[in-house]
Amino acid sequence: MAELRQRGRPRAPADPEALVASARAGDARALARLVSLVEDRAPELRAVMKAIAPLTGNARVLGLTGSPGVGKSTVTGALVAAYRAAGIRVGVLAVDPTSPFTGGALLGDRVRMQAHATDDGVFIRSMASRGHLGGLSLATPQAVRVLDAAGFGLVLIETVGVGQAELEIASLADTTIVIIAPGMGDSVQAAKAGILEIADIFVVNKSDRPAAQEAVRDLRTMLAMGHWGDGQWKPPIVSTVASAGTGIDDLTAKIEAHWSWLDSTSGLAARRRARAREEVAAIAVAVLRERLGGPPSAARLDDLAGQVAAGQIDPYSAADELVSG
Amino acid sequence: MAELRQRGRPRAPADPEALVASARAGDARALARLVSLVEDRAPELRAVMKAIAPLTGNARVLGLTGSPGVGKSTVTGALVAAYRAAGIRVGVLAVDPTSPFTGGALLGDRVRMQAHATDDGVFIRSMASRGHLGGLSLATPQAVRVLDAAGFGLVLIETVGVGQAELEIASLADTTIVIIAPGMGDSVQAAKAGILEIADIFVVNKSDRPAAQEAVRDLRTMLAMGHWGDGQWKPPIVSTVASAGTGIDDLTAKIEAHWSWLDSTSGLAARRRARAREEVAAIAVAVLRERLGGPPSAARLDDLAGQVAAGQIDPYSAADELVSG
Repeated sequence: MAELRQRGRPRAPADPEALVASARAGDARALARLVSLVEDRAPELRAVMKAIAPLTGNARVLGLTGSPGVGKSTVTGALVAAYRAAGIRVGVLAVDPTSPFTGGALLGDRVRMQAHATDDGVFIRSMASRGHLGGLSLATPQAVRVLDAAGFGLVLIETVGVGQAELEIASLADTTIVIIAPGMGDSVQAAKAGILEIADIFVVNKSDRPAAQEAVRDLRTMLAMGHWGDGQWKPPIVSTVASAGTGIDDLTAKIEAHWSWLDSTSGLAARRRARAREEVAAIAVAVLRERLGGPPSAARLDDLAGQVAAGQIDPYSAADELVSG
Repeated sequence: MAELRQRGRPRAPADPEALVASARAGDARALARLVSLVEDRAPELRAVMKAIAPLTGNARVLGLTGSPGVGKSTVTGALVAAYRAAGIRVGVLAVDPTSPFTGGALLGDRVRMQAHATDDGVFIRSMASRGHLGGLSLATPQAVRVLDAAGFGLVLIETVGVGQAELEIASLADTTIVIIAPGMGDSVQAAKAGILEIADIFVVNKSDRPAAQEAVRDLRTMLAMGHWGDGQWKPPIVSTVASAGTGIDDLTAKIEAHWSWLDSTSGLAARRRARAREEVAAIAVAVLRERLGGPPSAARLDDLAGQVAAGQIDPYSAADELVSG
């Protein structure tokens, strides 16, 4: 894929504005460097974000989520192919939970996406979900911002897992697709994970499996229990066999329909404002936390943690000491 | 279960120290109120935490995690029965992802745990995983602290999902049990979720299914790729059919073995210190974030978010304005 193929070229200039200009002109290497600046929380990031702010707001952001094994990456790959065929540049951000020991994201998704490796209109990056500010981390919304400014018409965010990450993807995306596969857990489990509330579109992938009908029926029953007012979006259910390309046309039609619905209501503006609110608040907390994170504070935190573990002080008093100290 | 059965009694005094004393004396209602103070982030919480600090450090904390449908709640129930038979008081904290729309945790786990509903030595609470400070939220470590101080010898934390929540449970628990079920996703998926790094014990539940041998073999192969030095703990694999009680003796034996290993090394102290560090840092960030969260700041944040969504300002500059304003 683009970011790997271009490794051999000389380095692009480090000047943020020049990098942004190169990325917009289609230089995949400049784009890869911009995303790396985001991931590394590099000092240049502020200048980059300032430069690209007026260039953002054009990309559509599609979130794909579901349990391990449902075929998220295969669905993502099929969507990339479909939108590329329509001439749209597509960015893919694959968010993997960080291993606390290796500190890196695995490359499984990249490997599976190699069909698009020679296409300059596709940019793929595995994002590590660092830190404790949520599974999608601070970096993902900023990477979306970079791809948006670089002229990618569609950004797909693929995230593994249920739970927190799934809730967060809904706050990031314009359209959230929840993928399930037959036999991967019953409807009580699905309700538990809160997917009903976040899904704009349900995909039952691997729908050639015997239990597929049952999975669709369970979803229908759950959706029937919801109350959908006039003008509200009721999530459709799309059956796919993504590995064979089956049902992808239907899926893109439902995505377009959701997009039209967002466009015809105040939905899009509200979602994007909410997304910006989360992003600004997260950065503000990070700024505040950085003020705690210098070397003297880290040592002080470790010392206080020892006292808390020994029962000599309670965690609130310890936090107060840390903040005031 | 205890907290529900006692609803009819007159209210216990609100005085934090008296509540703590009642909870230690076995008053389940006082205990339930203390946990509610934690969940509600009530103003009395600081006084409670101060009062119980010297009483903590005795409970063993066991984390159970795995994808939806693997049978976490059934394994939890079987462990509760086993430890109750040994005379140990057991607290269960079931962490569900919060629905962003209903704001509450579902009661699925409670329903399944009704076998223990008439046992005063069992306390069960579904915790909502609120907010963006991670799936297990600030409240869970504090609820552990309360149960510990109230004399519960064992606290089980059950969390749904893979990914971020799974990583967090490992930072909370003395012993982390990762539960899988045959046919729920291949080993690549397991590696992706980072479970190898966090598991102290693997459970292959529903091991009467055809693919169980294969799942055990896959796990063994993955474990064989790791490097285990002398004196390091190598996660054992336990096969269970928790619904029939099969394999639970073996599981408790492995839990005891891990406990002995922690005891014989500096492992336990290091884990508990790390846990306290996370807790104090999270409270400190929450304290700092509260300073942002007052009504004027919330309106300011919304206004800035609108400007960011419109591309009029970048999110860093917006965060700076928010923090300084």
